[in-house]
Amino acid sequence: MNKPLILVTNDDGITASGIKSLVSVARKFGEVVVVAPDSPQSGMGHAITLTKPLRLHPSDIFEGIRSYECSGTPVDCVKIAVDKVLDRKPDLCISGINHGSNSSINVIYSGTMSAAVEAALEGIPSIGFSLCDFAHDADFSVARYAAEKVITQVLKYGLEDNTLLNVNVPKVKLEELEGIKICRQAMAKWEEEFDARKDPYGREYFWLTGKFVNNDKGEDTDEWALAHKYVSVVPVQYDLTAHQGIAFINQNWDL
Amino acid sequence: MNKPLILVTNDDGITASGIKSLVSVARKFGEVVVVAPDSPQSGMGHAITLTKPLRLHPSDIFEGIRSYECSGTPVDCVKIAVDKVLDRKPDLCISGINHGSNSSINVIYSGTMSAAVEAALEGIPSIGFSLCDFAHDADFSVARYAAEKVITQVLKYGLEDNTLLNVNVPKVKLEELEGIKICRQAMAKWEEEFDARKDPYGREYFWLTGKFVNNDKGEDTDEWALAHKYVSVVPVQYDLTAHQGIAFINQNWDL
Repeated sequence: MNKPLILVTNDDGITASGIKSLVSVARKFGEVVVVAPDSPQSGMGHAITLTKPLRLHPSDIFEGIRSYECSGTPVDCVKIAVDKVLDRKPDLCISGINHGSNSSINVIYSGTMSAAVEAALEGIPSIGFSLCDFAHDADFSVARYAAEKVITQVLKYGLEDNTLLNVNVPKVKLEELEGIKICRQAMAKWEEEFDARKDPYGREYFWLTGKFVNNDKGEDTDEWALAHKYVSVVPVQYDLTAHQGIAFINQNWDL
Repeated sequence: MNKPLILVTNDDGITASGIKSLVSVARKFGEVVVVAPDSPQSGMGHAITLTKPLRLHPSDIFEGIRSYECSGTPVDCVKIAVDKVLDRKPDLCISGINHGSNSSINVIYSGTMSAAVEAALEGIPSIGFSLCDFAHDADFSVARYAAEKVITQVLKYGLEDNTLLNVNVPKVKLEELEGIKICRQAMAKWEEEFDARKDPYGREYFWLTGKFVNNDKGEDTDEWALAHKYVSVVPVQYDLTAHQGIAFINQNWDL
């Protein structure tokens, strides 16, 4: 069998420590190609670039690894990797390791996870990794350990059709880690608290800030797992149809 | 009962004809407040603005309607509307009418639909509307007709918890319209075809283009409905957990 071809991307940009950690794990499993944003793209969700062109430049940031930096969003990176960089469909796409949690509802805002979703849409087995630590110099050793475990399983057993994985790693030491738990996404949300300020010209502007509110007390959620020192693994779908809602509407509406 | 409070937004920007059409429908139902982007935001998906501040300015574009233009993404517009503009949670959020289809997988890339998803996350009954016609001067009369029908039903019967609606309107005359169909999202996708060019300095750049490929032949899909001159209504969820995938992993993995 050929060595697996592994596409690596992220949303913190190609110079982030998190992607360096992920590349170091990926190279144990196969041939690695990196296509990552040339600047931080946190919170870009599933944005694509329609109104301006993209740039794609080779990078020598990772020794012995074919790497490119792209001026677009994380989703753009996956699209251009598939169309312009790779000769064949990769066997795996991994995104991250994100500096900061992408558990619960954060999956929907996250560029890291949206890149992984885009790869899954392309039919590529795909995993997003995030560490619950925003620090620039965060310790990624437990995240590397978890990534190696999860990648091994995915390469061995595959994933169900039309799904991918969202892996979050708690900020703990390896000896404190309780294990890896398969979870559902907690039904939590952000409550906005825009910070209103005046610019030097007296005009108002706003910073988006927020408070994460989790009223979901389920012990089968990613939030529960992370709070109890487990790595959380959530299988994620990209079919957004609320299938049960079809019957509700057909029964109630009078059109 | 008080008149319903209706928040209107879009992704084509506050000056687009589509939002003008939607405001004209919304004002029949209640008190309307508009918070929409100050520039086109197509393809922004669920992006939020984290690295720069937002501006929010009153606009007099819609006579007799309290309106604001915001420098952020469609999702930012909903967030700032809820936190800084509205005194109470609106009874309904409507987004659009988008110039161009948001059927099938487009729901994931669409700023119009992501704004509606964000409102749903806030606990606001929410609907995104799109017309399958990209033209700047598209005829929105059938879309207005459909919006009025659907809004009537949603205000009367509500929506199931944690769901919203994705409404797409075919490019047909009213007398050709076959009706309104409740559908699932077709499992179709875009195949990228980046257009590579050289800039005046000889450096390469890329435009994202693509071909929409629908191999889903189901007659219960939005694509089928639109091709057969129906308005498609897809109930949409924002819990991305692939619940059936949890058992698959627990059965197969050896951690």
